[in-house]
Amino acid sequence: MIDRLRRLREAAAAIGADAAIVTHPANRHYFSGFPANDHAPDESSGILVVAEDTAVLFTGQTNLPWAENAVRPPVTAREWNRPWSEFLGQELQSLGVRCAAFEDRALSVSDHAGIQREAGEIRLVPAGNAFHALRAVKSKQEVATIAEAAQITDAALEAATLNLSPGITEKALAWRIEAAMHDLGADGPGFPVIVAAGPHGARPHHDPSDRAIEEGEPVVIDMGAIVGGYTADLTRTICLGQPPPEFIDRYNTVLSAQRRALTEIRAAMSGREADAVAREELSAAGYGDRFVHGLGHGVGLNIHEFPSLGKDSDDVLEPGHVVTIEPGVYLEGWGGIRIEDLCVVTPTGLDVLSAAPK
Amino acid sequence: MIDRLRRLREAAAAIGADAAIVTHPANRHYFSGFPANDHAPDESSGILVVAEDTAVLFTGQTNLPWAENAVRPPVTAREWNRPWSEFLGQELQSLGVRCAAFEDRALSVSDHAGIQREAGEIRLVPAGNAFHALRAVKSKQEVATIAEAAQITDAALEAATLNLSPGITEKALAWRIEAAMHDLGADGPGFPVIVAAGPHGARPHHDPSDRAIEEGEPVVIDMGAIVGGYTADLTRTICLGQPPPEFIDRYNTVLSAQRRALTEIRAAMSGREADAVAREELSAAGYGDRFVHGLGHGVGLNIHEFPSLGKDSDDVLEPGHVVTIEPGVYLEGWGGIRIEDLCVVTPTGLDVLSAAPK
Repeated sequence: MIDRLRRLREAAAAIGADAAIVTHPANRHYFSGFPANDHAPDESSGILVVAEDTAVLFTGQTNLPWAENAVRPPVTAREWNRPWSEFLGQELQSLGVRCAAFEDRALSVSDHAGIQREAGEIRLVPAGNAFHALRAVKSKQEVATIAEAAQITDAALEAATLNLSPGITEKALAWRIEAAMHDLGADGPGFPVIVAAGPHGARPHHDPSDRAIEEGEPVVIDMGAIVGGYTADLTRTICLGQPPPEFIDRYNTVLSAQRRALTEIRAAMSGREADAVAREELSAAGYGDRFVHGLGHGVGLNIHEFPSLGKDSDDVLEPGHVVTIEPGVYLEGWGGIRIEDLCVVTPTGLDVLSAAPK
Repeated sequence: MIDRLRRLREAAAAIGADAAIVTHPANRHYFSGFPANDHAPDESSGILVVAEDTAVLFTGQTNLPWAENAVRPPVTAREWNRPWSEFLGQELQSLGVRCAAFEDRALSVSDHAGIQREAGEIRLVPAGNAFHALRAVKSKQEVATIAEAAQITDAALEAATLNLSPGITEKALAWRIEAAMHDLGADGPGFPVIVAAGPHGARPHHDPSDRAIEEGEPVVIDMGAIVGGYTADLTRTICLGQPPPEFIDRYNTVLSAQRRALTEIRAAMSGREADAVAREELSAAGYGDRFVHGLGHGVGLNIHEFPSLGKDSDDVLEPGHVVTIEPGVYLEGWGGIRIEDLCVVTPTGLDVLSAAPK
């Protein structure tokens, strides 16, 4: 935690601030150890304030005993008074802060106004993505945790799809997957499991329904177990019974694009360049306009985080980034094919953490 | 949906706006039908814009097919371009909006700046809680859905605690509860199930751990099933084996305070007055400073929403509000007792939706 706080202070100093106000739940977790999520955008579970000599997680009375137990030294937990925004402004004053960097992407207009109201002459400067960026390169221990989450995810897919018969509903299969992740030791699903059968697969994001899965149709399964706050992310597209020729064709097209991406992508490429590797192959096969999302995204304490691998992304891949590689094609009325693996970026390529068969 | 949009337009007009920008996930759900949650404060699943003649849910390409399927007429779904904040500013211009009300408690400083950058002369005015307030009084259909969620929650507690023996861990019991809610037809848990045994019960909020539950200690169980987006909320405190005298004493003290609250609270009381009913009784028993949270909160598409029943709350109870009544006492080193029911406010009292035995 000491090293993380040092890097946070440096990032704040780089934009002229002598304190950092951390409001994003994943950043709060990373820099304090307190794992709580926020109930809603207007219901924060706590705010971390890091100044030159202090690092305090402020939270409500209800969460305080939990926070006291969870924060890692030298962070301490203290109770706030409501409204916490004004309380925070006063705290910044008592700490003698001159300029505080805040997360403008994760602080509401109302809370910002509350802090400023009580912060007097203290300047508040937006940090943009500066605090997020500090979480992008994962430590060995973080990679080990993510690898464990990926292993549980692989095993849960295998367990849940063993002896699967047509007629099971999307919802029932999603639940089997969730229960298998739990039984294998996950702390929970990192995001709602997607099971999208037949035409539903044309929606990259989809709420599992009561639709019964039919023989021969594509079934997109997107899932990830959480371990120690870190989420895995895995997609497989399966087919019950004998796959029809168009399934096999499309599947092999996506698989080939994914394999090429797994082989060619490496550190120092931009998100745009990485995306292009798979996009060119899908375009050549006539599916360019059916690959409706980016190739992948960073994964960590958030399921979607820096860097982005997409056609408009200038993010640059670095060794230690953990990213998904997930090309897909989506055909209205027919369904979708998506194949996704979780990978660690290395100087020379990608280490693939996912091992579920394709 | 037409009636909801009419009330939304009226609320915007009341603060001088001819359009509303809806960014809070629960409000977006309520006013559009699109049930997606946001992945993180800086990762919105969609923004609803309601102007004089239009109601459009803007979202990314990945979510668009889902959103198109989920929105209820007259709301339509359309794709945004990124960054969506600037795109939205341009849209407000094309719609001829003069003044747009936005949710200052659920719009980030950065997104607000993006909208303003492209919105030219259009004024953006903060709506505060005005849009939330429109969800506070529940329709008959909403109450019926919440009652169903409450029934499933009651039944899940009964199923999960049947034949419970000491030695089961908090985590294992939490999972039994989650699985029972699923088996009984819930769409999921509305919030992470709390099982806090022995000293852990001194924390009102707690992550279930590997601690094995011992005979004779208090076990606080806080849980709620989701049905159709609406969450139930139920807490019971149980004891495996023969409860020791101090458990019985404390339990009866909390139960008596809760019964009094259930009997005396009615519409037209303030949140402060409602809270005082139970607080006075707990104080008289010497536990005033151990009742460390408010008496209750509104429940609906959010687990915590308007109105608040607490010692600083000026919210006024109205018929059709759905609220929790949950007094509790927390003793460091020993544990906690909390008893919570879900209730509908009526002109003359409270209709209790929870039926789990106490």
